[in-house]
Amino acid sequence: MSEFDYQQLDDIIHSRIRLAVMALLITVEEADFNFLKEKVHATDGNLSVHLKKLEEAEYVSVKKEFIERKPRTAYSLTRKGRKAFEAYLDHLEKMIKK
Amino acid sequence: MSEFDYQQLDDIIHSRIRLAVMALLITVEEADFNFLKEKVHATDGNLSVHLKKLEEAEYVSVKKEFIERKPRTAYSLTRKGRKAFEAYLDHLEKMIKK
Repeated sequence: MSEFDYQQLDDIIHSRIRLAVMALLITVEEADFNFLKEKVHATDGNLSVHLKKLEEAEYVSVKKEFIERKPRTAYSLTRKGRKAFEAYLDHLEKMIKK
Repeated sequence: MSEFDYQQLDDIIHSRIRLAVMALLITVEEADFNFLKEKVHATDGNLSVHLKKLEEAEYVSVKKEFIERKPRTAYSLTRKGRKAFEAYLDHLEKMIKK
């Protein structure tokens, strides 16, 4: 197996928006939709689609709650997501090592 | 600007096959099609499409030659491609810093 084999990179993580979301979520316990949107600079629709894909892969879990009667949707990395992200970074590092 | 802003990542480089090709080409002076194909594990058609995109962006230059009467197509990074790849790695590093 070559370190340049592109299929080693997890396709679910390797999209620019999903990568940015994963990289952000690994730094915090949880983040709400608006925070993600502001940091990642994605549109609502685009961000929703990519979060859905991460949720379907069970890389991200979603918690809906009401805070002072306002709805809030909080996202966090799952254990599976964390492991996948670490594996992704390992492969990436091997590929781009200088 | 947020370090998680996904648009900071050069879209031309950030596709798995093109990233693998760029990462490989930065390690060698030039590489022919079959070598790239073997290392990146892409199909002919897929690899051609992505090489074409890198060529159109002037990140990669193509040299067609005959060696012992056999055609050979050699690819190498351009100066522009090298700079773009370094900028890509800088942004990526900021995004995924631990």
